[in-house]
Amino acid sequence: MNTKDDFSDLKAVYINCSIKKDKTGSHTQNLLNKSAKIMQSQGVEVQHIYALDYAIAFGMMQDGNTEGQKDDWPDIQKQIMQADILVIGTPIWLGVKSSVATQVIERLYAFSGEYNDAGQYAYYGKVGGCVITGNEDGIKHCAMDLLYALQHIGFTIPPQADCGWIGEAGPGPSYGDIEFNGERVSPDGTPAGYDNEFTDKNTTFAAWNLMHMAALLKVQGGIPALGNTKDGWKQVVNAQSENPEYR
Amino acid sequence: MNTKDDFSDLKAVYINCSIKKDKTGSHTQNLLNKSAKIMQSQGVEVQHIYALDYAIAFGMMQDGNTEGQKDDWPDIQKQIMQADILVIGTPIWLGVKSSVATQVIERLYAFSGEYNDAGQYAYYGKVGGCVITGNEDGIKHCAMDLLYALQHIGFTIPPQADCGWIGEAGPGPSYGDIEFNGERVSPDGTPAGYDNEFTDKNTTFAAWNLMHMAALLKVQGGIPALGNTKDGWKQVVNAQSENPEYR
Amino acid sequence: MNTKDDFSDLKAVYINCSIKKDKTGSHTQNLLNKSAKIMQSQGVEVQHIYALDYAIAFGMMQDGNTEGQKDDWPDIQKQIMQADILVIGTPIWLGVKSSVATQVIERLYAFSGEYNDAGQYAYYGKVGGCVITGNEDGIKHCAMDLLYALQHIGFTIPPQADCGWIGEAGPGPSYGDIEFNGERVSPDGTPAGYDNEFTDKNTTFAAWNLMHMAALLKVQGGIPALGNTKDGWKQVVNAQSENPEYR
Amino acid sequence: MNTKDDFSDLKAVYINCSIKKDKTGSHTQNLLNKSAKIMQSQGVEVQHIYALDYAIAFGMMQDGNTEGQKDDWPDIQKQIMQADILVIGTPIWLGVKSSVATQVIERLYAFSGEYNDAGQYAYYGKVGGCVITGNEDGIKHCAMDLLYALQHIGFTIPPQADCGWIGEAGPGPSYGDIEFNGERVSPDGTPAGYDNEFTDKNTTFAAWNLMHMAALLKVQGGIPALGNTKDGWKQVVNAQSENPEYR
Repeated sequence: MNTKDDFSDLKAVYINCSIKKDKTGSHTQNLLNKSAKIMQSQGVEVQHIYALDYAIAFGMMQDGNTEGQKDDWPDIQKQIMQADILVIGTPIWLGVKSSVATQVIERLYAFSGEYNDAGQYAYYGKVGGCVITGNEDGIKHCAMDLLYALQHIGFTIPPQADCGWIGEAGPGPSYGDIEFNGERVSPDGTPAGYDNEFTDKNTTFAAWNLMHMAALLKVQGGIPALGNTKDGWKQVVNAQSENPEYR
Repeated sequence: MNTKDDFSDLKAVYINCSIKKDKTGSHTQNLLNKSAKIMQSQGVEVQHIYALDYAIAFGMMQDGNTEGQKDDWPDIQKQIMQADILVIGTPIWLGVKSSVATQVIERLYAFSGEYNDAGQYAYYGKVGGCVITGNEDGIKHCAMDLLYALQHIGFTIPPQADCGWIGEAGPGPSYGDIEFNGERVSPDGTPAGYDNEFTDKNTTFAAWNLMHMAALLKVQGGIPALGNTKDGWKQVVNAQSENPEYR
Repeated sequence: MNTKDDFSDLKAVYINCSIKKDKTGSHTQNLLNKSAKIMQSQGVEVQHIYALDYAIAFGMMQDGNTEGQKDDWPDIQKQIMQADILVIGTPIWLGVKSSVATQVIERLYAFSGEYNDAGQYAYYGKVGGCVITGNEDGIKHCAMDLLYALQHIGFTIPPQADCGWIGEAGPGPSYGDIEFNGERVSPDGTPAGYDNEFTDKNTTFAAWNLMHMAALLKVQGGIPALGNTKDGWKQVVNAQSENPEYR
Repeated sequence: MNTKDDFSDLKAVYINCSIKKDKTGSHTQNLLNKSAKIMQSQGVEVQHIYALDYAIAFGMMQDGNTEGQKDDWPDIQKQIMQADILVIGTPIWLGVKSSVATQVIERLYAFSGEYNDAGQYAYYGKVGGCVITGNEDGIKHCAMDLLYALQHIGFTIPPQADCGWIGEAGPGPSYGDIEFNGERVSPDGTPAGYDNEFTDKNTTFAAWNLMHMAALLKVQGGIPALGNTKDGWKQVVNAQSENPEYR
């Protein structure tokens, strides 16, 4: 890549953290697809991962296989480390992100002690976002949970990096449903949420901002390695050196 | 500013959202000061605002004075709009951010419909972080709340943009206390938390990452205005145009 | 009161934590009123408090007047202490409870060190619930925040003590709006949300469960004072006495 | 059981939602044990369940076996339905409850459409609490998440139903650790947190309040079935009937 306006060198991983074993039933995938298509249209290489297609071990280790658990996470981690952009998609259950999303964050966290060549946490230079769907309530709560975790382990969060869809309070159709309780969701066949301009706008903004920030960081070679490295932070002006005199 | 490594053109606003009317009692200020000193050492112009020094009106309007409330917020907003970096400091009460911090977010949100010349939300190009202190529990919960709000209205969140200090579960000294319940916090006079390397490290990383990201964005002229503008998002590939054919 | 089925001795306080200075604009009040009417129909004495009608001081003190702030909270606190049921109503802004609600919780918390005659925290024996409205997203997140705080300081939370209304993702009419953006919300004049059976059901369940639990506790004389009192908890079997032998 | 002061008819289920496959490494179990011992000392029958000892399927179904997944949840659910008290224990990872705890809540939620003979949600009459441990930060955040979910599906939450332990901000020993980084946690061998009076007090209050409330509800035959039943809520005064006249 030569410039911050060229996205063709970027790679994005989209992880769908649905709790449905059968991925064809995931409504979250519908919105993930719209986001991914925007990126693909700009030349970004997109990889979709449906978490429940894999056996992911529980725990705060990097490879569960070493502990006797079947664990596909190391392969997933490899894909993420090769990507510039990570988008986590989750359904909302009882107002919070899914168990699968929680597990994905835990496994990402288990690698947060890894460093890049500059001595920064390994996720530095990557950008993170999220896509949330439910039929009822909780986009922002899930998003704050996911985006916080990502920035905490080293991802940069561009503006408006979250998007989602929910319907009016109460049970109802999910994103992309054409029928609900035996009735068509809309007379002309528009699936639930597909005509929601707010969701489309946020999804668009999120996708573009993730690309912009990823390209900016790639052109710059990541976050400059000063004041934020494992061994180096005490060599620059820091919170310890700036302690007031109190003795 | 000529390069991304020169921070001397940057301005940072630190808002302390303590609920103590008398600011000399704020423990959060102690940690805010350490963060601010790091920035000042690199030439960043720092402005401290103690929210309760001002009369801030409740409500989702831009200027409460027009509704008959005394309201100093418009002046504060002006300072924030001139800054590249915004750091919100809050104490923790019952595990959550303070009422004052909530009010500050509400008032920032009231301006989220403003646009820059490129048609992006007005906060685009700015970076946001937070500083949290309490004696007990809740740094991450407060941070996820604050950082989410900032990114949602247009701020960029660099990696590890939050820092804080709490003590062990239960009542105890607050950050910077030399005495608690009539006894010295430590034999050698070190104030509570001042010898916490984790807090110092996170505070350092946050301060430097905020500067790095602010400089990066300033050099680049902000976030490129494509796919994220009021009127323009429908002119590029977007979530609406990428709707699957369903009719 | 003689039985747990007679609610005529109960008193309920409803606090509306809208951030609108002019209470006639509060949509949350619409749903609070529906909840309150259910209680009133059963003989419960209901008192409505619109928080912004009062000057409430910031801080963790019991009476701001003693610190030179104008503070009406002590009067509000008196009303709450005379009530059996406390319902907090809040609008949603950026996915979280309002600044006013946060302040109300802080002031309630400032009294959490008060004790009843049995040595229990003063709020023991009271029950708490909440009512949430917004046009977009966040009922559950606000409810978990409010209900947690209430139970933490001594309130009992009956089943399904929260209720609320939001519309589909994105800007839209608020609860009770007849018009939005110059158009009628529904052809027959039904205000936004008034025909939402889910909201009505939850509001009904919450109101009745609050009454049931308040009556149960009143008939029983509150929560038995064993294992949960200031001085007595070490006199019964407790977590300290049940420490495993480890030395 | 004859009276509300006799706990010998009560049954409690404690679920440990550690993410460690090997349960001997769970620090949360240490605090769960202290809570359970208090209950056992009063004659309560206690059952401990270590979630990761079982194969629990992902999804919002009642029995994953019917969908071709191995699923032990139906057996766990049976135990919970026979209990009066449910205590969920979780470690804190990145400030939030564990993936396993999230999954447990999801599976409980999948049964929230079941009804008791009175037509109430099946969990009515049961009480819920939680136990949280971590080495750093997040007790209250995890607790609000868990307690909210429990009350939302029908559990009653007595006052102060949560307890936990964390150490000072930053990495450090976990609850019950005798050594950390090769050094003894305390000179006299006291495990981390075992001398924390705040944690012991909260654990004691929570255990006793859960017993008090469970006994109160059992003596009373649960929550009276009026205004909170599947079919009956529209037969009493309700939010629909109390709609203001607006047409």
